[in-house]
Amino acid sequence: LVFSAVSAICAPLASWNDGPAKQAIETFVKKVTDPDGKDFVSPEQRIAVFDNDGTLWVEQPMYTQLAFALDRVRQLAPQHPEWQENPLLKAAIEGDMKTLAASGDKGLLELVTVTHAGMSPAAFQQIVTDWLASAEHPRFKRRYTDLVYQPMLEVLAYLRENGFTTYVVSGGGIEFMRAWSDRVYGILPAQVVGSSIKTRFEIVDGKPTLIRLPEVNFIDDGAGKPVGINEHIGQRPIAAFGNSDGDLQMLQWTSTGAGPRLGMIVHHTDAEREYAYDRNSHFGRLDKAMDLAPAEGWVLIDMKNDWKDVFPAAK
Amino acid sequence: LVFSAVSAICAPLASWNDGPAKQAIETFVKKVTDPDGKDFVSPEQRIAVFDNDGTLWVEQPMYTQLAFALDRVRQLAPQHPEWQENPLLKAAIEGDMKTLAASGDKGLLELVTVTHAGMSPAAFQQIVTDWLASAEHPRFKRRYTDLVYQPMLEVLAYLRENGFTTYVVSGGGIEFMRAWSDRVYGILPAQVVGSSIKTRFEIVDGKPTLIRLPEVNFIDDGAGKPVGINEHIGQRPIAAFGNSDGDLQMLQWTSTGAGPRLGMIVHHTDAEREYAYDRNSHFGRLDKAMDLAPAEGWVLIDMKNDWKDVFPAAK
Ligand SMILES: [Ca+2]
Ligand SMILES: [Ca+2]
Repeated sequence: LVFSAVSAICAPLASWNDGPAKQAIETFVKKVTDPDGKDFVSPEQRIAVFDNDGTLWVEQPMYTQLAFALDRVRQLAPQHPEWQENPLLKAAIEGDMKTLAASGDKGLLELVTVTHAGMSPAAFQQIVTDWLASAEHPRFKRRYTDLVYQPMLEVLAYLRENGFTTYVVSGGGIEFMRAWSDRVYGILPAQVVGSSIKTRFEIVDGKPTLIRLPEVNFIDDGAGKPVGINEHIGQRPIAAFGNSDGDLQMLQWTSTGAGPRLGMIVHHTDAEREYAYDRNSHFGRLDKAMDLAPAEGWVLIDMKNDWKDVFPAAK
Repeated sequence: LVFSAVSAICAPLASWNDGPAKQAIETFVKKVTDPDGKDFVSPEQRIAVFDNDGTLWVEQPMYTQLAFALDRVRQLAPQHPEWQENPLLKAAIEGDMKTLAASGDKGLLELVTVTHAGMSPAAFQQIVTDWLASAEHPRFKRRYTDLVYQPMLEVLAYLRENGFTTYVVSGGGIEFMRAWSDRVYGILPAQVVGSSIKTRFEIVDGKPTLIRLPEVNFIDDGAGKPVGINEHIGQRPIAAFGNSDGDLQMLQWTSTGAGPRLGMIVHHTDAEREYAYDRNSHFGRLDKAMDLAPAEGWVLIDMKNDWKDVFPAAK
């Protein structure tokens, strides 16, 4: 009752134009919450998973976490003259994006281990929080946490008002996202699934401590997403939102179960208000998942036509 | 308001005798839930973690999951004549506990990979569910899921009624526990942290599938418990319940934060109604954590004197 009242006052999905995408969300939610319907799903089974980069916030001209890693390399470089001998780190310091891009996933991973390890998870989150408080997106000149998609914030709220538990399931770093997911998305640390480096518990000067190690623990992308979902959530979601081929297996896994399922793909079609990209993008490539969408029943969200606003209004 | 009413009707902690243990729980909960007190903790920070074997259910004469693995080896043995060539599996088939015990953790792990892998998590949980429906504890002649500690069920309910989220954090298998944790403890799959084997996503005959692999992924015991807590929960708990040295680091990690903390240890002192064991037990050895308890402020629960009943009444 309380939830219904709130939802009525706040006009759910207010930033969505009427159209097939908005309708797909509303129809699905009505189905699974109707206690008299054949498609009713009990609240503890109402699990919805959301990719992060390009689904909940901007991922161009590069992943925000990569922008963070590059800033961090530059900030720490004066204390590490030896980094000048490392071609990758030298490229990062000098902003040589061509060399960085050519280094591929391996280079990205090396950047992450150099910049994300050696401290506790709490200390790392503080570093992320401090960076987010000052870093600015190169095109929009706003904080990265302001460049979240207003219509998707409304989907998160709408689903939670209807008894869903919402999870982020991202290839991004789990602790990087936990630093702000509660504040920005209303998603608690325990509901964040992501890639991780290993962590070790030890007693340092008599004090119990967790230390982040420069070693990959888990890559929560592609076929890793259903694995991460199983490990953290232990139930199959009934709704999944993604934007790239990295979400393909998560969409497949979510769509396979019995009963109604919702699979949606944010299609970046709005070069004016945000970006337009799909099959040929370096970040957030959408190709195979788009081809499979019609047969699988996944609904594309056409950013340009489905969204009244893209970002929250500037304060 | 609803919660308070339920709690008043059900008389929280009804199976606890008045004494320091019951008092420690009640005092702690009153402190952290008093909105006007200096020790108030917001609901999303009220995280309580519970070891499973020996803390929530019986672990003698052997871990229940080991009893399951042995039954499973015996059940599958006719299809695997080659197991007769393997001394460990032969010992399991013949119930030769001496050889099994001598094989140590390495042997235990081999038993687990042989019996727990090769199927989907859902299929594995069904196997566990079927086993629990018929297996009987050798001494009490009851289902294992009936041999949970009634006073601890009351602690779980009492904490949840007071806005806590309760987690199981166990060295036992995460999927083994998820098969029944909701039904028996009211703890959803996403709130179960445990040891795991690796899982792989693949498309089998066109169907998205998760397969459990015979390879260890994570051991959630000892120094692994704070690591598992960090990975799954992403917040430091404010209350921890354990019963052995495998919970030592979880207790240390929980006790270190600012503000009020509750650390409790179930001490098995009741040979008549359950078992009496601590420093010399093969399963659930309690030695170092007991020595450190007074200085750390951890409260021992004296099963014999603190608990009116041990198990729920037989139906
Ligand atoms: Ca993405
Ligand atoms: Ca235990």
